[in-house]
Order: sequence, then C-alpha cells, then structure tokens
Amino acid sequence: MNNHLLFSIAAHDPDTAARGGLIELPRGVIETPCFMPIATHGAVKTLAPWEVRELGAQIILSNTYHLYLRPGMELINRYGGVHRFMGWEQPLLTDSGGYQVFSLASMRKVNDDGVTFQSHLDGTTHHFTPELVIDLQRQLGSDFVMALDECPPGDAPLRAIKEAVARTTSWARRCLDRFGTTESGGDHPQTLCLVVQGGTDPHLRRQSVEELLALGAPAYAIGGLAVGEPREALFATLELLNELLPVDKPRYLMGVGTPADLVRAAALGMDMFDCVLPTRNARNGQLFTPNGTLNIRNARYRSDLEPVQADCGCPLCANFGRAYLGHLFHTGEVLGLRLATIHNLRFYLRLMARMRQAIREGCFRSWSGEFLQQYEGEAE
Amino acid sequence: MNNHLLFSIAAHDPDTAARGGLIELPRGVIETPCFMPIATHGAVKTLAPWEVRELGAQIILSNTYHLYLRPGMELINRYGGVHRFMGWEQPLLTDSGGYQVFSLASMRKVNDDGVTFQSHLDGTTHHFTPELVIDLQRQLGSDFVMALDECPPGDAPLRAIKEAVARTTSWARRCLDRFGTTESGGDHPQTLCLVVQGGTDPHLRRQSVEELLALGAPAYAIGGLAVGEPREALFATLELLNELLPVDKPRYLMGVGTPADLVRAAALGMDMFDCVLPTRNARNGQLFTPNGTLNIRNARYRSDLEPVQADCGCPLCANFGRAYLGHLFHTGEVLGLRLATIHNLRFYLRLMARMRQAIREGCFRSWSGEFLQQYEGEAE
Repeated sequence: MNNHLLFSIAAHDPDTAARGGLIELPRGVIETPCFMPIATHGAVKTLAPWEVRELGAQIILSNTYHLYLRPGMELINRYGGVHRFMGWEQPLLTDSGGYQVFSLASMRKVNDDGVTFQSHLDGTTHHFTPELVIDLQRQLGSDFVMALDECPPGDAPLRAIKEAVARTTSWARRCLDRFGTTESGGDHPQTLCLVVQGGTDPHLRRQSVEELLALGAPAYAIGGLAVGEPREALFATLELLNELLPVDKPRYLMGVGTPADLVRAAALGMDMFDCVLPTRNARNGQLFTPNGTLNIRNARYRSDLEPVQADCGCPLCANFGRAYLGHLFHTGEVLGLRLATIHNLRFYLRLMARMRQAIREGCFRSWSGEFLQQYEGEAE
Repeated sequence: MNNHLLFSIAAHDPDTAARGGLIELPRGVIETPCFMPIATHGAVKTLAPWEVRELGAQIILSNTYHLYLRPGMELINRYGGVHRFMGWEQPLLTDSGGYQVFSLASMRKVNDDGVTFQSHLDGTTHHFTPELVIDLQRQLGSDFVMALDECPPGDAPLRAIKEAVARTTSWARRCLDRFGTTESGGDHPQTLCLVVQGGTDPHLRRQSVEELLALGAPAYAIGGLAVGEPREALFATLELLNELLPVDKPRYLMGVGTPADLVRAAALGMDMFDCVLPTRNARNGQLFTPNGTLNIRNARYRSDLEPVQADCGCPLCANFGRAYLGHLFHTGEVLGLRLATIHNLRFYLRLMARMRQAIREGCFRSWSGEFLQQYEGEAE
C-alpha cells in the first residue's frame, strides 16, 4: 500500500469528542487538530515558505488541478516533486483536483470513467480519471494523496448525491488499486486518503462511510460539506460522521471554515482542516481577532494608532498600527496583503494550538464556550 | 541651523575621484557611497522594514508629495513622524515633493512664490512653497530634508533651465530661513540639503553651485540629471560638479541609476544615490546580475532549475530556481514580486559595499573596469 502514517491520540477531551493527536509522516510530525494553509500555485499567497513555517504551520495544502495546468507536470518532474519546486520540506497534502474541476472548470462532463473538462485558463480539454489523479499526485510527491471524488453542490437533488456516493466509492477503489502499484516521484513515501461523500443525508453518509471502510485507508476526508448547505446540517452531519468513522484514523474536514466552525468541528472529533478564509480574506482587508473580524478598509481605522490585536505579537501587530495597515491597503501596497495574511494565518494556527492545549488539559468545553462567546458576541 | 550631520572621508581612491565616507546622523551611521531604496508611500514596495534593514540598507527615501496626499499630515503628526508611522528607525531622507509635482501632477503653475498643482489622485488643488515643503518635512521628521527646487525636463530650452537655476537659489534661501526657525516634529534633529540645478550647461551648473555654496549647507544634492539627457552629458556634468562642489560635504545624485551608472558616478565623487530601478524592475520580472539583467518572464527560463545568480545567496537565489520564480510571475503570485525585489535590492546594496571596499583598497579603477566589462559585455 505504500502508506506510511502513524496516528496516535494523546488526549481525549472528557466532555466533547475533541481529540489531540499526532500524525507521524516520514517528512515530519503534525499535531492535531491542525490547520493547513493553502498554497494553490505552489506558494501560500504572499508568503515565503520559511514564513509559513515560522507561523507554526506543520502541513500545507496544494492544488493538483492548478499545478497540473501551471507549471505542468514536466517541470514538477524535473524538480523531483512539489516540495523541491516550492522550497517546502515539511508535510504537504495535495487534493485530487476534483473540487476545482467541479467548481472552476467549464464544460464539465462526468461519467463513470472520470471527468472531462475545459481549463479555466485557456479552454483546453482535459480528462481526469481516478488513475490519472493518483499518477499526478505520485509525481507531485505530496505526503497526503487524495482520492478522486465527486462533490455535488450543496443544493443538489438527492439523486445526484446518491450517484456521487456510488461513483466516489468506485473511484476510491480504482485510486487504491493505482496507488498500490505505483511509487512516489519524490523523496518520501506517500499516504492515500479516501473521501466520504453523501451531502447532509444521514443514510447516504452512512453508506459512503461503510463502503470506504470496507476498502480501508489510513485516513478519511469528509467532502461535500461547506458547499452551501445550512450550518446546522453541516454540524449534524459531522456529529453522525464522528460516530461512523473509526476513532483511530485521522479525519480531515475539507474546506472548513471560520474560526468558530473549526472550534465546533474539533469538538465533533475532526482532526485536520483547510480553508482559504485566512489568506483570501486577508487580501480583502479582513482581519481575524478574538473579538471577531474587522475590516481595515473601514474609515473608523484611518486614524487608529492601535495594533489590530493588542495581545497578538505577530509581525503586523508588534510593529504597526491599524492606520498604517489601512494606509497600505488604500495605496495598494503589497506589504499590506502580506502583513494581513501573516496576522490571519497566525490567528488560525494559534487557535489550533489553543484547541490542542484545551484538549490536553481536558477543558475543551469551557475553553471553547468562552472563545465562541467572545468571538461571536462582538463581531463587527 | 539644526543641522546634525558629521561627514568624514576615510579613503580617497588614488586613480579616480571615488571616496569612501561616513555620514553620522543622530539616528545612525551611513557608509558612502550608499544607495537609498525608495519607500514611496512609507513602505519599500513589497518589503517589511526589517527586511530592508537585513538587506543592508542604512538609509531609505520617502516621498513628501505622496505622503502629503496619502495618508496626509494629520496622521503622520499623530504618529510623531514618518519613522514611527512605517516602523523604520534608521536614517530616512525625504524629497521636497517638487520632482513629483513636476512629473506627476497636472495643471501645474510655477511662479516665484511656489508651485500650484492638481493632485494626480483626485484633482484637488494644492500649493507648495519653499516654506511649506520645509514645514511638511519637519512634520515628517526625516533625517535628510530636501530644499524645494525647480527641475526642468532634459530637453528644456536653455532659458527655462536658467530660470530654474535662479528660482532654485531663491527657494533654497527661503528653505534655509524656514529650516532655521523650525524644529523637527519627530524625535531627532534634521539636516537640510540644497539642490543644484543647471541641466547639462556648464555655466549654469557653475552659477547654481556658487549661489548655493554662498548660502551654505551641510550636504548638496544634484538635481536636473537623469531626466532624459544623453548619458555622456550626464557624466560630463558630474565631472564638472565633482570639481565645483566642496570635497568635505556629501553629494547626493538624485534619481540615478543603473548599476553601471552608479559605478561611474561613484568614480566621479558622488556619495549618495536613489533610484526606482531595482524595485520597479523587479516587479516587471527584471533581475540584476553581475552579467547584466535577465527577464524571468522569458520563455528560456521556464524549465531552468538554476538560481537567478549562482553565487548570490539572497533568499531568492538560495532557495528557488529560475523556473519557480518564472512560475510565480506567470501565475501572478505576490511572492514573485517580493523575491525579485529582495534580489535586486541586495544586488544594489552589495554593489555599494563592493565599491566601498574597492575604494578602501585603493583599486576602484581596476575593480570597476572588471565590473563594467562583465556587466555590460554580457547583458541580455
């Protein structure tokens, strides 16, 4: 199988399903619950890899679809994988590309073999199969490889979700087969992760989990959430999945979410997260703080000399006032995007560290209650 | 006078007019010849102040015109000057704003009192006088304050240059008067620098220098060059100015230039330089190397795994290949702009350090001959 992952749970919170774990991979160790900053094109937007590391990231995520289109696999192969290409030596997860095909590409045609699509960049036609996305990720040499799944939108009819579950299982089997007969194009062995689908329907979720568990994998991802469904349905589905998924395997909740989402999902036994929010919102001037978000473009900050977050200590808050950051945004200075990105990622990564601490100390319920009250009570 | 500058020359090159000096200011020491990175809006584009410092900059330049328009003086005053606003504690020079008025603003009207112009941002009307630009720079708290001068374009008729010289002298006198009766709005005393005009006409240059020397200042800047005149005329004018200007005052050649220009101007006794080239060209993908420039967008680098400059060691060259940098530019990643800016500024600042070393060792002529041959002989 070429899977090389050790997962141990050091602490179970007594009041919630939150758990503090350790994922050991050949390239490094990841403490969970963890957040993965997103390096879409092989760079966490605005940041150098050593900055991402210094912020506390132990694993990042990059997008197979984007790297496949640009720079293309030939160059990645010349580099010997995505790690050397982008100068990141720690663990890295690549998605399968499926989500981007379903959300970005045009003229999409899915059948049981795979998915045909046109590049959002130049309209050229491409065909992804379960086998190809494994081959691509083998070449990328990512530490976590994701199986190809079909991810319907949040408002898809039940029939479409049912079809997606069946197809996702069939594709998972083909991914496992291909993964079992191939080797990494990089320096380290890789781990394959299967993706659960089923929308917010309990029966379909149960079916998807049972079919994937029968196939067997060292880690399970939860797809098909955070795609437009109501928040309560998201958390009800996580509650069910917490019961269905094996305790001793890492659970990766794809594409979630706000700081409050992460806290609530960790309480439901989720271990790994990724989301564009901290980096994308930073570039729109939205800063995360323990009291909710603030938008630095707001006129009220134009003469505010205080740091964005007084007790933060990140390079933004330790050195600059809100008025200066606002000035950088008003004048279009790239430094503003960087400083906001640094602050937001630090906020997310420190939030994960605090979750892990609360789990270790067995006080996740009271800690998270206080956090949520402060975060949601005073949001702008 | 409130001037607080000590200038000492530690070494005169035996074969050229190059000199290695030390400018001591209350905020720090500057080794000359020196290059000043430009922080137009209170930030060296894409970089944090600590990065600029780590690259070896001992002094930076910011633009009075731009800061006056955005964020405006009220905020700068609240911060207690531009240093605290932008988090830069070392020496900083501000220009008078005159050059931007003459190059950026529209509906410009000059008379002996000053210059009326419309903001290039919103068309609002403003009036700069010699007194006002001193007041503005007093509020900015910059270490070097520049007198207001009139800078005609490189193809201006002799009459216009003659008028500009007379006006520049009259404005210099008023700047000195105002400077003598005011104090810094920041934490440290400031130094006023007068600007020589006269285009490439030897008689007018001589007149301008004589009139300004009669007024007396601790440092002299050379304006009205690098404004479109032929290269030979630029260097002929510098040769003359090297003879006319006092040996024991720093000479600041405004807005120059390419690496080759800097080497040639240092050989003619120039001490201080600023230019947008390393930062602006970085953002266009142009990288400076000892063998000339290369543009990373060029197709030939798309699969080139070598660093931009093998013996460089800057964060770009130590960590990434040309193909990766090109990929960052092709995908519009901000990290590419940053890495290119870091490389170019490091190239410029290290070039200044090598000039100073060659001057100390008394071998500027042979060193610069080799540098220019390599730089100009193999340019792309």
